This record gives sequence, C-alpha cells and structure tokens, in this order.
Amino acid sequence: MTITVKALQKTGPDQPFRVADLERRDVGPRDVLIDIRAAGICHSDIHTIRNEWGEAHFPLAVGHEIAGVVEAVGAEVSGFSAGDRVGVGCLVNSCGECAACADGEEQECTGGKGRKVGTYNSVDVDGSITQGGYAQKVVVDDRFVLRIPDALDFDRAAPLLCAGITTYSPIARWGVGEGTKVAVLGLGGLGHMGVQIAAAKGADVTVLSRTLKKEETALKLGASRVLATTEDDFFRTHRNQFDFILNTISADIPVDKYLGLLRPRGVMAVVGLPPEKQPVGFGALIGGGKVLTGSNIGGIRETQEMLDFCAEHGLGSWIEKVGVDEVDDAYDRVVAGDVLFRFVIDTSTFETAKAESAEAVAG
Amino acid sequence: MTITVKALQKTGPDQPFRVADLERRDVGPRDVLIDIRAAGICHSDIHTIRNEWGEAHFPLAVGHEIAGVVEAVGAEVSGFSAGDRVGVGCLVNSCGECAACADGEEQECTGGKGRKVGTYNSVDVDGSITQGGYAQKVVVDDRFVLRIPDALDFDRAAPLLCAGITTYSPIARWGVGEGTKVAVLGLGGLGHMGVQIAAAKGADVTVLSRTLKKEETALKLGASRVLATTEDDFFRTHRNQFDFILNTISADIPVDKYLGLLRPRGVMAVVGLPPEKQPVGFGALIGGGKVLTGSNIGGIRETQEMLDFCAEHGLGSWIEKVGVDEVDDAYDRVVAGDVLFRFVIDTSTFETAKAESAEAVAG
Repeated sequence: MTITVKALQKTGPDQPFRVADLERRDVGPRDVLIDIRAAGICHSDIHTIRNEWGEAHFPLAVGHEIAGVVEAVGAEVSGFSAGDRVGVGCLVNSCGECAACADGEEQECTGGKGRKVGTYNSVDVDGSITQGGYAQKVVVDDRFVLRIPDALDFDRAAPLLCAGITTYSPIARWGVGEGTKVAVLGLGGLGHMGVQIAAAKGADVTVLSRTLKKEETALKLGASRVLATTEDDFFRTHRNQFDFILNTISADIPVDKYLGLLRPRGVMAVVGLPPEKQPVGFGALIGGGKVLTGSNIGGIRETQEMLDFCAEHGLGSWIEKVGVDEVDDAYDRVVAGDVLFRFVIDTSTFETAKAESAEAVAG
Repeated sequence: MTITVKALQKTGPDQPFRVADLERRDVGPRDVLIDIRAAGICHSDIHTIRNEWGEAHFPLAVGHEIAGVVEAVGAEVSGFSAGDRVGVGCLVNSCGECAACADGEEQECTGGKGRKVGTYNSVDVDGSITQGGYAQKVVVDDRFVLRIPDALDFDRAAPLLCAGITTYSPIARWGVGEGTKVAVLGLGGLGHMGVQIAAAKGADVTVLSRTLKKEETALKLGASRVLATTEDDFFRTHRNQFDFILNTISADIPVDKYLGLLRPRGVMAVVGLPPEKQPVGFGALIGGGKVLTGSNIGGIRETQEMLDFCAEHGLGSWIEKVGVDEVDDAYDRVVAGDVLFRFVIDTSTFETAKAESAEAVAG
C-alpha cells in the first residue's frame, strides 16, 4: 500500500513544472511520515532537473530543504512522534557501516550506490528513484530526520537543511570562533547563511564582493564590512589578513590571489562548484602552508547541531515565499541572482494549484 | 673585521663553480661561528643559482643544508659553545615579532624583506646578500642554529636541515601516526625522507611511482609497498585508500585523480613546486571534504624536534659524498635524478681544490 500525495514534477529538463500524483511508500517500521509545510528551492535543484549535472530521471520532483510536521511513525521509531516539528535535508539513507558513517559523516558514505541515498534523483534501497520535497508529504527513515526547534519557523528553517549545514560544517570543522577573521565570497543563498553563522560564532566577518551594492544587507546579516575586490591593488592591500575564507561562488575565481589574502596556515573552504577546473599554483599553497579544501553539506549529527545553533542565536534563512504555480518563475530569478536569499515553496498551495498546472501540461 | 673563508661560488648562472675567498662578518654578540663539515646539495640550490627562480645575485654561494662544529660564539650566546655539533637550514633570520614568528613558524615570517632572511641569495639585516653553506665556515644568529644529536653523523644530518624538515613538518602537522595510511609520491631527496619519517611515526607507507623500479629501495627505507600508477585502472582500484598523500613531485600531476585516492577528509600535502599552475576540480575537494595543502620547510623549534626524532629512530639521509671539484657534475646528476638520494659536499676538500678551480675560472 502506498500513500498518494501531490508533488511538483517535471517530465523533462525543458518542461514546466506540473502538479502530479506521487506514490510514497507506506510507513515502514523505521519510517517517519512528514506533512511538508515548507520546501526550499536550492540551486542544486535547478542544476539537477535541468539536466546540467548529468542524468536526471524523469518524471522527477526535486527539493532537499524540507520542513514539516510528523504525521505518523513506524512501530520501531522511538525518537519521533506525531506532531513533532522536523526537517529533512539532502540525504535519506547511507550504509551506516563505513568509516564515514561511523564518524557521523553520512554525506561521505563510501558504501556505494543504493546505500547512500540522496533525497531526490537517487537510487533508493528498493531500486526506485527518490522524489524530493516539492510535495505534500514525504516518508523518510528516522535516522535522517532532524528536529526543528520551536524557535525556528518552518519557512526560515527549510533552507537551513542544505544552505545552513553546507556553510556551518566548514565553519565548525576549521574552528571559526571568537575573533577569527573570516571572509565570505559571494552573498547568495549560501553566503548569507555563512555570514550569519560565522558572526554568531564570534568571528569578524568581511564580505568580499565585486561591488559594495550589498553592503547594507551584509551588515544586517552580521558582517563587519564589505570590501569590493575590484578596488585598486585589492589583493596586495589585503594580503595576509584573513584566517578563513568561505568561498560560495560557483564561478571561476583567481584562486592564488585569494589564497594570498590568507595569513600563514589560513584555510579557504569552497562550497560552490565552478563548472571548470580552477588553476592553482602550488607555490600559493606552499608559501604559508595554506589550506584549500572543500565541504559537502554535513552529517546528520552536525545538521542537528546547526539547527540548534541557529535557534539559539536567532538565525534563519532570509526567504521569499512562492506558491507551487510560481516555481518556474522562481527558478529563472534564482539563476539571475534575483532573490534575497532563498525561495521557499508554500506547500499549502498544492490544493488550489492542481487544475491549472494539469491543464498547462495537457496544452 | 671580517673572517675570510673559502667558498664555492658561481659568477653567473651558466658559469662553472669556482673556489673563491668569501668574507664572513665578524662574530657579533649573538652570533655563532660554525666550521662546516658537510653541506648538502638541494635542488633549490640548482634552481636558484641557475636563475630559474628569478633573480640570483652573483657572485653567489648557495647551500642551506649545513652541518658542522661550533668554533666560536658571541658574548651573549649561552646556548652554544665551541665544539658543539650544530646545523643550519634554510633560514638565518626573521622578524621575531609577527604572529608566525610568535608561533615558531619563522619560515612564514610576515615581517618583510630584510627581516626574514634566507641562508643564501637573501637580503641580510645589514643589506648584504647572504652566502650559503658551500663554504668552510658560516656565521649565524644563534636563534637559527640547531643542535645535531651525537647519533647523527654530519653527512647524513646535513640534508635533514632542508629535505628532512620539509617532509617532517606536514607529516607532524596532519597527525600522521600509528596506522595512518600514507602515500608518498616521488622517491627523491624529499620522498626518501618522507618515507622514513612517516614509517618511523608508525604509518603504513606506500610509495606511488610510475614503475616498480625503486621497489627494493623503498622497502629498505621503510615503505610497506610500491604501487605503479601506470597499472590499469590504478586510480579506480585504489580509490579512498589513503589518509595522507605527501606529494614531493615538482612536475604536473593529475591532481583530481590523486585526491580520489584519499579517503573522506584525507589530506594531500604538496612540497614540490611544479612550474605551471595545476588544474583542480573543486568537486574533487568538495566530495569527501578533501584537503589540498602545501608546506614550506618548518620552524626552528620543529626543525630541532625533527633532528631529535631522526636521531632517536636512526634516520638520516642516504647520501653520496662529493668533493668541491665535483659539484658541477653532481648538479647534472641531480637534475637527471641520478643520485640515491642526496649529494653532500665534503668541505675538507676546499684546501686541495683551490688552485685548480681558480685556474678554470681564469681560463
């Protein structure tokens, strides 16, 4: 027996979204059935469903920034019960046995396909393709369900499940704290969370941007200043000034120049994925023993820690709500950088949207 | 008053070496006068004096792997006295005030030129150009003099001052120890020290090489195995296998493929400097939260720690001794990779070599 819910799917990379019926598996002994209240729109959703990152399996519903309320739990679930406020991020399963899983880094699970399971477009343990959070409900193994503290509302919490943990994890791993001099490159969905989290950790945060356009916003988020990288002699003037650079840009950057902004032993963590390889001069790493590293979301334990941290410090994503009929337009605006900073789908609009979208597909 | 000593200098990048008189400064209050017994030939010497790394100041004596005996000390020197066995590495001064110096990382001193002073071809505090260890004696500030334990002979100790610390420092920084799975890329002057040190730390060391030619040597140095990177499907077969890669190669490598050999959170430390920038796919860093870092010799405190570690574990450079007349040939053999693993100049040959070399220059 399956559970029929409405979901926003595409039937191909160039098709508009449509509201369709989706079958969720019945609630198994370790499963949690979640009534979705908010689903964030992540740039990864767009790359995936537009087939820019390799094979998308259609029809597909994306979305891995999910917040909602527990509707039912399986017989063996003891950690959650109906009415709990919960979230689901990018992962819905992992092998649980490899070294990474043992370390609580399920996102790095080396158990192979069908063991590590992404929230959408991934091969599930039963061989089916997972369908994401642009939907009314979802059924998820309880090990991959997070608690959303009461202090966080669903809309502002949903994007934390991806954008929040993606920035929190490297900030925590590399010991950003009181007095750390942090530079954040790029002030979008990821950057705006990075600024808030680093500032809440006690860091002195500088936003590096091509212009000073976003200065007021950056200061509101907790930055101490914005510097325009286009100013004369920028990379010479600010040499050796930062302990940690969080690079959220998914475009080409002059990596060596940015490494020069780091003090000796400083760290640049990249969380944005430029399509092309970036040329790195090893001299820029050797001199000063600099670190260039990447970071990939975060494990379940750390994601919970991040949610609790955001609740404690009053952090959340800055969002704009859209109905299910507005997601196509929202995608275009994300690509154009025209959102402060995250769209969140109001899943209560599924009821009213259905007929219209179905007609659009039929036409 | 200065001290006249014999030194091996070049008058230009394409000139042969000649034995010439060199004036060392008189022993100041904080100085140590060292009678040099062995001077290692480092590939950096060759790059510098052949003008491959920018401006060399001629006439120039290179050499920053220096071992010898204290002949005299200044009035304020309390840590050393005549007869002590000592060494000097790549650094002879630093500002002593910046954050890096305060952390004992004098090699990363940000005090600027004329504060951080390299052992040769560097602007000294008095404005003169420093002259290295291919000489009979050297005068060095006592803060930059290391103790060579009795268990280490001068010839095998000299190369430790550069090749030893260059490999010891990243091995120590990244916590290589009992059971760490280490891969060493390249088995030359640096690699042969990296293998010995990592193995002595308790790591399981694999040498990665294009062929198995050096297998017997690698095993003698303490490696558990040699793998040929040219074997079919090498990078797939050995995926996720190493905790730490020490890359001593100064040529282009497929960085992303090597990052794939690392387990999640693994570290590749580069100590060789390829002339060209290396293309790095950020995806290879993001997936698994991998670390790409560099390392630049090491601080004075850590260099002493390395010397003590080598003495305790019976490690030393594998060397071939050459007379001062044989250094031109030795350089060609280093460039050809034809030495196991380091040439060390026997400075006692200065006396007999003088006339012949002087004639050669005159001719």
